[in-house]
Amino acid sequence: MDNFVFNNPTRIIFGKDTELSVGQEVKGYANKILLHYGGGSIKRTGLYDRVIKSLNDAGVEVFELAGVQPNPRLSLVQEGIKICRENDIRFILAVGGGSAIDSAKAISVGVPYQGDVWDFYEGNAAPKEALPVATIVTIPAAGSESSFSSVITKEEGWYKRGLNSELLFPVFSIMNPELTYTLPDYQTACGAADIMAHLMERYFTDTANVELTDRLIEATYKTVVNNVPVALKNNNDYNSRAEIMWSGAIAHNGLLNTGRQGDWGSHAIEHELSAIYDIAHGAGLAIVFPAWMKYLYKRDINRFAQFAMRVWNIDDNLFDLESVALRGIQALEEYFNSIGLPTRLSHANIDDKHLEEMADKCTASDTRKIGGVMQLNKEDVLNIYKLAL
Amino acid sequence: MDNFVFNNPTRIIFGKDTELSVGQEVKGYANKILLHYGGGSIKRTGLYDRVIKSLNDAGVEVFELAGVQPNPRLSLVQEGIKICRENDIRFILAVGGGSAIDSAKAISVGVPYQGDVWDFYEGNAAPKEALPVATIVTIPAAGSESSFSSVITKEEGWYKRGLNSELLFPVFSIMNPELTYTLPDYQTACGAADIMAHLMERYFTDTANVELTDRLIEATYKTVVNNVPVALKNNNDYNSRAEIMWSGAIAHNGLLNTGRQGDWGSHAIEHELSAIYDIAHGAGLAIVFPAWMKYLYKRDINRFAQFAMRVWNIDDNLFDLESVALRGIQALEEYFNSIGLPTRLSHANIDDKHLEEMADKCTASDTRKIGGVMQLNKEDVLNIYKLAL
Repeated sequence: MDNFVFNNPTRIIFGKDTELSVGQEVKGYANKILLHYGGGSIKRTGLYDRVIKSLNDAGVEVFELAGVQPNPRLSLVQEGIKICRENDIRFILAVGGGSAIDSAKAISVGVPYQGDVWDFYEGNAAPKEALPVATIVTIPAAGSESSFSSVITKEEGWYKRGLNSELLFPVFSIMNPELTYTLPDYQTACGAADIMAHLMERYFTDTANVELTDRLIEATYKTVVNNVPVALKNNNDYNSRAEIMWSGAIAHNGLLNTGRQGDWGSHAIEHELSAIYDIAHGAGLAIVFPAWMKYLYKRDINRFAQFAMRVWNIDDNLFDLESVALRGIQALEEYFNSIGLPTRLSHANIDDKHLEEMADKCTASDTRKIGGVMQLNKEDVLNIYKLAL
Repeated sequence: MDNFVFNNPTRIIFGKDTELSVGQEVKGYANKILLHYGGGSIKRTGLYDRVIKSLNDAGVEVFELAGVQPNPRLSLVQEGIKICRENDIRFILAVGGGSAIDSAKAISVGVPYQGDVWDFYEGNAAPKEALPVATIVTIPAAGSESSFSSVITKEEGWYKRGLNSELLFPVFSIMNPELTYTLPDYQTACGAADIMAHLMERYFTDTANVELTDRLIEATYKTVVNNVPVALKNNNDYNSRAEIMWSGAIAHNGLLNTGRQGDWGSHAIEHELSAIYDIAHGAGLAIVFPAWMKYLYKRDINRFAQFAMRVWNIDDNLFDLESVALRGIQALEEYFNSIGLPTRLSHANIDDKHLEEMADKCTASDTRKIGGVMQLNKEDVLNIYKLAL
């Protein structure tokens, strides 16, 4: 186990009807806010009206910036920064999934910064202050509601990059599983794949002696795997929605990587995919992760076999751990398919046209390493894309 | 799953040599502190010298209050309150196990309070402010280093009572597993029993649909069970010490009871035992918990059988869940004995002389309920003591 510092100050307000308290919660921080969200869905479901009413009742003045898209765009972030500066807004409330939250976080570090906020995402500068951000979560997936991460996309050249900073922890997050009843099944499944990927990025590690976090990851992973089919079968099942939603936050709040190095290669490889093809991040991960596993499981057969045995209940044949490991990867692919996700580029109608370009962009940076368990160069990344064809 | 609010702001600084940074960490809060600890052990091991040097190097002025005993006493708390008031001290650093930390927490709420600090522990008043407390942990057991709890004992009448308040989260806790190398085996085992009890108090619940937290508790529990024998065999084994120490904090930091009601009957029953007989809390729990389980497992055979199957690897005979449940309780008792702990009052040379008196004191309060899964009256508590004879 490595030395570590763990601190997660986000206050989680979880359960039925919790969004009705948003006005009172916000009031503790600000009288004027930027409300940041996507588009029609929160209006169709009535969530928008409930949030506005709660904010109005608490006497909070609301400026709005809608239009967040999946793979949130830098241009909208810059618009948000402008609105906050012009109106002296010092608090941002994001309502939505990871895209709305990540976009809000980008605005929050951009407002007090003199330079271009993209500097932070390119690793050319580190943020020193940020406006407080709070969230009402509608999609269990990114875990951004209790993480210190934000990922945005620069349209010019379609670069998708992430920023990690302790300044990015939301001050509070409201999580009502009922808000996820109206998610299309495909989005529920993509969210699950994102959560599972966050767990696997942490699980596959070179750090030795990490029994507690291994077991905590397996516990969270099995919970997601068990509950997603239930939620897909009955969209309004509170219990499975609650298990998935809380798992999504736990998966990415920093606890499960205490004392261990993660990998994150698959995330970097997927980012190029969704930057160019604009497919859902979770779907991209369902394609990339099995290919990544096949490419390098031999480096640590024991770990991949343990994953297969403990998470996928593959028979513990200790005389042929490679076969156990491979059956685990197969179980993962079958699971993704069973919940309606692609596991091949061809399933998403992506051919080999841009593989070279994506591998290039993924590995172009001098400062950013790709992969922890195995550091990947351009050829490795290209091979992984090819395995996913 | 119940609605819940989860927030734990304690910053955990974990790993080798981390105590050397205590001066710099404290400096961010205060230039003058009360250093609160037990007695000889931190001086014998050299920890005291390292802490003082780090504090001196950072220019922190140190007032000291030593003499914390197991089952920390109200009289010492009152002495600490006096020292802080007379010297205008606004920060407390506890070095030690749960006793030193709980005592420091009691001082921290007592200093700004006009009345008697015991009011808080009797439930006659709620604290409104507290001095910040930080800790350097030397015994993985109470979990007080990242909990909002404190338990102290009033000598007059030997009452042992707990206080829960969000004000009691330490601002930071330094956790170096190497500091636990010198623990006597019996203390390591007692600490493990305390951690296991914290997990079981949460596990045995009436709340339905709590899969994620069930699995997280099982994960933490198995890690403790696996690693304690390793640490007992080789006291200087870093990896097992680290697993136990981090598990001890996770077990009691509030995460594992999110959305579920705990029981806490065994803790209340044990408190009377250690208040009168001054035995180690962990040893008392090893005696009380199996008896508590035997007294009420029939109320929820499925849960006790799941515990036996998932944690103790008892064969999953679904045609006789009662036998599975009972074999789980037996496995727990055998485990406690195997690490050198008593599981009967007679093992600790305690006879039936005070059972009636303890059952009386345990259930005397009008405001405090005993037990969550099953609310216990005096007769129940007496029966549990008798089962433990």
